[in-house]
Amino acid sequence: MTAYFGRRYMVSASHRLHSDQLSAEENRRAYGKCNNPHGHGHNYVIEVLVAGPVVAETGMVVDMASLDGIVKETVLNRFDHANLNMDALFVNRVPTTENLCREIFTLLEDRMPAGRLHTVRIEETENNFFECRRAEKE
Amino acid sequence: MTAYFGRRYMVSASHRLHSDQLSAEENRRAYGKCNNPHGHGHNYVIEVLVAGPVVAETGMVVDMASLDGIVKETVLNRFDHANLNMDALFVNRVPTTENLCREIFTLLEDRMPAGRLHTVRIEETENNFFECRRAEKE
Amino acid sequence: MTAYFGRRYMVSASHRLHSDQLSAEENRRAYGKCNNPHGHGHNYVIEVLVAGPVVAETGMVVDMASLDGIVKETVLNRFDHANLNMDALFVNRVPTTENLCREIFTLLEDRMPAGRLHTVRIEETENNFFECRRAEKE
Amino acid sequence: MTAYFGRRYMVSASHRLHSDQLSAEENRRAYGKCNNPHGHGHNYVIEVLVAGPVVAETGMVVDMASLDGIVKETVLNRFDHANLNMDALFVNRVPTTENLCREIFTLLEDRMPAGRLHTVRIEETENNFFECRRAEKE
Amino acid sequence: MTAYFGRRYMVSASHRLHSDQLSAEENRRAYGKCNNPHGHGHNYVIEVLVAGPVVAETGMVVDMASLDGIVKETVLNRFDHANLNMDALFVNRVPTTENLCREIFTLLEDRMPAGRLHTVRIEETENNFFECRRAEKE
Amino acid sequence: MTAYFGRRYMVSASHRLHSDQLSAEENRRAYGKCNNPHGHGHNYVIEVLVAGPVVAETGMVVDMASLDGIVKETVLNRFDHANLNMDALFVNRVPTTENLCREIFTLLEDRMPAGRLHTVRIEETENNFFECRRAEKE
Repeated sequence: MTAYFGRRYMVSASHRLHSDQLSAEENRRAYGKCNNPHGHGHNYVIEVLVAGPVVAETGMVVDMASLDGIVKETVLNRFDHANLNMDALFVNRVPTTENLCREIFTLLEDRMPAGRLHTVRIEETENNFFECRRAEKE
Repeated sequence: MTAYFGRRYMVSASHRLHSDQLSAEENRRAYGKCNNPHGHGHNYVIEVLVAGPVVAETGMVVDMASLDGIVKETVLNRFDHANLNMDALFVNRVPTTENLCREIFTLLEDRMPAGRLHTVRIEETENNFFECRRAEKE
Repeated sequence: MTAYFGRRYMVSASHRLHSDQLSAEENRRAYGKCNNPHGHGHNYVIEVLVAGPVVAETGMVVDMASLDGIVKETVLNRFDHANLNMDALFVNRVPTTENLCREIFTLLEDRMPAGRLHTVRIEETENNFFECRRAEKE
Repeated sequence: MTAYFGRRYMVSASHRLHSDQLSAEENRRAYGKCNNPHGHGHNYVIEVLVAGPVVAETGMVVDMASLDGIVKETVLNRFDHANLNMDALFVNRVPTTENLCREIFTLLEDRMPAGRLHTVRIEETENNFFECRRAEKE
Repeated sequence: MTAYFGRRYMVSASHRLHSDQLSAEENRRAYGKCNNPHGHGHNYVIEVLVAGPVVAETGMVVDMASLDGIVKETVLNRFDHANLNMDALFVNRVPTTENLCREIFTLLEDRMPAGRLHTVRIEETENNFFECRRAEKE
Repeated sequence: MTAYFGRRYMVSASHRLHSDQLSAEENRRAYGKCNNPHGHGHNYVIEVLVAGPVVAETGMVVDMASLDGIVKETVLNRFDHANLNMDALFVNRVPTTENLCREIFTLLEDRMPAGRLHTVRIEETENNFFECRRAEKE
């Protein structure tokens, strides 16, 4: 069998969905109320799932304090109580939650041993969520 | 990595579990209280998970308004505030949540591009849930 | 200060909202989809709040097993996996959740020492709830 | 006993906490990260609790569709997917959730018969909430 | 109207319910499985509700960082990841959640201006909760 | 497509994380507050996911009463309201939730037809969870 450890974090942030590649009308159609000019916000619930063997000595998949440290430096300090549109990552990229999820996946993957990060899941509201899972081939 | 968009809906419906292929005693054993003669009901929470690339222009996996339209026409208008046993799909099929989940998977798959619908998950109560996932080979 | 003990139960039941005192048109206007002819259903979450002093010997407001017994006999056995419209209480009374809440309050109050039952709260869906609280004068 | 009907709504909005009556340092001390210059956001869960007798004919405390209409016109259309700081109500008032809660209480009270609105509760995050209850004397 | 601020905390602790004033048989009857000899544990969710006017300058009922500081010193540092039976408060008092709730109410009340602390609510499991509210006369 | 049935259970237990293979200092570093000498506890939420075809006659993946019986005998009777460190399984194995999850997976797998048990998921707190999934090759 395969073991996983999951951890849940929360970030409160604002964003406005607007693409420079689309006309005003197309933006309205694509994003609806999310295109409102002054932005809006969410409590983003972020789940990080890490795969790996259970270490015999400690009985743990991953050291929770280390994971918390990586997520704090990489994700929480950067995005919590922030306006996503102001972040360097979203200068030429619409800050949809799909894109936020992919960027967080990449940021975390760069800080972990290869093959450990399995899924990043973001709940934007209680009715919407997004996931990035590592490709099955890996 | 692979990206997914998930959306959560709710349907309040009633059903009675009873199979014409089973005796009264077998029905009672198979379904317990769910076989009670006048039916009962649930708030079914339905999660739809769609896989696909993030479209570069919009930063989205799927257009949420379109998905909501498909689910409304196909699932919500049909099953919300309904008695499942009266539906044409359940004339010769017991309206278990397994069967409801499979039928909803098929109804939605018929309305989407091939390979996009990944999972339909139904919570019947907070302690029971059912999933249909597309076969891994696809 | 005043102490309270609360306990949460769940009942899956079906109902149809229809008043014999209203015309077909008035029923439709009053109850909307809840007036659909074959009924529908919910997972009713029922919270019972009991007030009282903390007994010095046991450190408890109420004996939980006794409360569970009373609720089981009075509420769960009667309404779980049932069609509320078939119950004697709802022969001449529309089985709205307001009425269900009041009837459960009365059924439980009859089985407890005076002044102990404080509130019965029913969540019909995650977005609707109903409460009966004892009058403040008591 | 007294009866209540409660209804739950959700609004996604952004805000920045900053008081013109306080210095930069005082603002930082009072609001912490909530004073960050470009704002942030939340999914505000808003619960509206209405008190009143159960109407004998309909078995209801309040007509849900009417309540939904009032809340939509007064609260949802105004605050959902908005930046609270841009609203006329918050020109000279810090858009804390306390103030938002009070303003919503007043907006709703003006649209209902006297003595019906009992509580407005707002969850700003899963760990913070705010309530305005009508004064007990009324 | 009256305003309230609520805040939610979590504590993971263990306890065993056993009263020296009761016989072995009475302990078993009063506490059931909670009397098991080696103890068990819970994630206690603790909600603190503070009443008070909204301060005009800041738009806040209470300074959240100060409240968090008081709760951390008084409650979290003392009870989180602890065995309640080992605490000085429970040497001669059964560590039921009723008693824990009362003790936390008293500990917090001692650290706040008179009349501000309104309710302490503890969820022991998702199906059980306890509240201490200040007496209505105050 | 593939069908799954999931069921949710809860167990309240205590544990202390301490490895005899580690020094006092290493134990403290690995487990933090979870290494506190007198233990602490959790409400463990355990989800069991069973894969399999929907049986045509009954419309069910698995008989729920049978599954409940197996889980009760194997998991609930053993671990609910217990101290995990006292269990024979954890004499030479640290009772981390990873290890608890693996042991429960093995205990349940031994009682089911081959290939049916798909995932055991344990939520230790609302912010931590663990999963064991059967190897994909099977």
